[in-house]
Amino acid sequence: MSSDEFVVTPWNVEGDIDYDKLTKQFGTQKISPEILSKIKKITGEDHFMLRRGIFFSHRDLNVILDNFEKGKKFFLYTGRGPSGNTHIGHLVPWVFAKWLQEKFDVNIYFQLTDDEKFYTKSDLTLEDTSKFALENALDFIALGFNPEKTKIIINTRNIRRLYPIAAQVAKKINFSNTKAVFGFTNDTNVGMIFYTSLQSAPCFIEDLPVLIPLGVDQDPHFRITRDVAPKINKPKPALIHNIMIPALTGPGGKMSASDEKSTIYTTDSPQVVKKKINKYGFSGGQVDIEKHRELGGNPDIDVSFQYLRIFFEQDDDKLKKIYEDYKSGKMLTGELKAILIEKINSFLKIHQQKREEAKKNLSKFLLSDE
Amino acid sequence: MSSDEFVVTPWNVEGDIDYDKLTKQFGTQKISPEILSKIKKITGEDHFMLRRGIFFSHRDLNVILDNFEKGKKFFLYTGRGPSGNTHIGHLVPWVFAKWLQEKFDVNIYFQLTDDEKFYTKSDLTLEDTSKFALENALDFIALGFNPEKTKIIINTRNIRRLYPIAAQVAKKINFSNTKAVFGFTNDTNVGMIFYTSLQSAPCFIEDLPVLIPLGVDQDPHFRITRDVAPKINKPKPALIHNIMIPALTGPGGKMSASDEKSTIYTTDSPQVVKKKINKYGFSGGQVDIEKHRELGGNPDIDVSFQYLRIFFEQDDDKLKKIYEDYKSGKMLTGELKAILIEKINSFLKIHQQKREEAKKNLSKFLLSDE
Repeated sequence: MSSDEFVVTPWNVEGDIDYDKLTKQFGTQKISPEILSKIKKITGEDHFMLRRGIFFSHRDLNVILDNFEKGKKFFLYTGRGPSGNTHIGHLVPWVFAKWLQEKFDVNIYFQLTDDEKFYTKSDLTLEDTSKFALENALDFIALGFNPEKTKIIINTRNIRRLYPIAAQVAKKINFSNTKAVFGFTNDTNVGMIFYTSLQSAPCFIEDLPVLIPLGVDQDPHFRITRDVAPKINKPKPALIHNIMIPALTGPGGKMSASDEKSTIYTTDSPQVVKKKINKYGFSGGQVDIEKHRELGGNPDIDVSFQYLRIFFEQDDDKLKKIYEDYKSGKMLTGELKAILIEKINSFLKIHQQKREEAKKNLSKFLLSDE
Repeated sequence: MSSDEFVVTPWNVEGDIDYDKLTKQFGTQKISPEILSKIKKITGEDHFMLRRGIFFSHRDLNVILDNFEKGKKFFLYTGRGPSGNTHIGHLVPWVFAKWLQEKFDVNIYFQLTDDEKFYTKSDLTLEDTSKFALENALDFIALGFNPEKTKIIINTRNIRRLYPIAAQVAKKINFSNTKAVFGFTNDTNVGMIFYTSLQSAPCFIEDLPVLIPLGVDQDPHFRITRDVAPKINKPKPALIHNIMIPALTGPGGKMSASDEKSTIYTTDSPQVVKKKINKYGFSGGQVDIEKHRELGGNPDIDVSFQYLRIFFEQDDDKLKKIYEDYKSGKMLTGELKAILIEKINSFLKIHQQKREEAKKNLSKFLLSDE
């Protein structure tokens, strides 16, 4: 792979992603100024993740919004593959989904795909992934979703509800389709080959159109769902895509739940957060203080700055000042990291309390199988 | 396909099957005189379906018997693809399974694969196949299985119990395996590709070895299961195979639930049974009575005689007399058919009563999902 190439699939993200190219490759639409102003008109707000292009691309979001304005509701669906503990990158689409739920006052389904992670990870048992699913669910609940309008799906637990829907989808997908979309080969296990139908199933769990906020790497699953939907007389799911959250160790991949170094977990202590960022945080700074003061840093590749931009500094003026100070050399890498460490630890302090409380409420959120 | 060729797969049976060749092709063992005498020793009986070679082949049946003699139990598992109403051919392995249950005093699981028939039949909905599943269950229960030791699995209904087991199997099967065993292609739908893991799942539902009485056309599924079993630390299932039950219209296929003409349903009235056999029953007789008296008939290809041999005349002496009288020309085709009609109608009279009673007991037999 040459330096200007990149790979984005549901199971592998590599290289320096050119999101303009990716949008063309995937055939999605960039979120236009018209869509942004329509969202602002409906919600009365201008979410920083939209404004900053963290959510950058979509499929049929305009249709969802137009119909909403005509009084036609929709529901939300997002999810997570529970291959390990939750890290801060996972929270990005969830926080945005919560905002959508509040502003549009709609139901949300959150799917934990314990079966998928079992099929794709040779070292994980189904017991492992089901345990991670329950752990991840706590982080989701901790963000403050409305229990009246929020249901958590765990695939193995809710399979009785999902399977008859997945079967409708599975009958309309052949092996060629999965080869073309996922690059499957004759060596791919039959669990993985079937699995995409289960990721499709929540799209049709309510008799309404669905909007899915998700990492752009998951788009291929729903490309299949969108092809199948009219064949089973269902509306095509609409999507809104976020960029990949960079690993702590730098661009060229996504933050991965299974790589300790590249990841800040939601359960990390303040000391661990500090150590990880100071030790592994990929820096856009110069080789020494003198050079940094002279030439300035590069916030566009600095992971600490990116985390502030993506999630932890929601105030545009403050973010702008940090950007300029770092770029001019006024702010040192250590100072930038200190800002991020403080922000993350403040966030995690509250999150970890809410995560504890979530243990008591978990059962309220789990989808029933009837 | 030339006249000496035949095809036997779980979804297609064609041609005049040479069971010796099939045994070699599939790599199964013929049931030996030693095995027959061991079964007789254990059960005190000599079941006519064994004696007559209706059950003709096996995998590891000797292991099951040897272990049983040493005090090691097993359980039974068989099933049916609910693509239509039950016909008399379906009852053959079930009647034999019931005998095994009684004689060995073991549990039996009966799987109704409503999902499979949905995946493989373009004209059937999942509602159709689930409805057929419940209808077929009544015929199974009507045969008199012990409700304490018998559980009926309906795939969509019991998927929560089956799926975690199926997932263990699915992770160890790749697309190549399903191509090799079932002849799947790139056009095969992903439901069918995954499905074999669900047919494997009941093999591992108890922590004991399993013995599966089944039509030999289903053997390929369990060839896969037997390859996978050691990889998931489970015993290989043992199998005992019955021959294909010929269609009413003659050899060169199996009786099919979806072809009205080739099939006698368990719910057919005496008049319908009489009409179907007289009208469609493939005959080994001569073109007219004179020729028949002169040359005699051929019981070996006569479907009415075969039905008596396979199921409806359990008395060897009576069967032998019919064979000889038909072969010598003493018995006419109409007379032979009349014997079969009487036998089937006597059987169905009682079966249909028991089938009605089964409606009350259905819930006792359905596997719970916990």
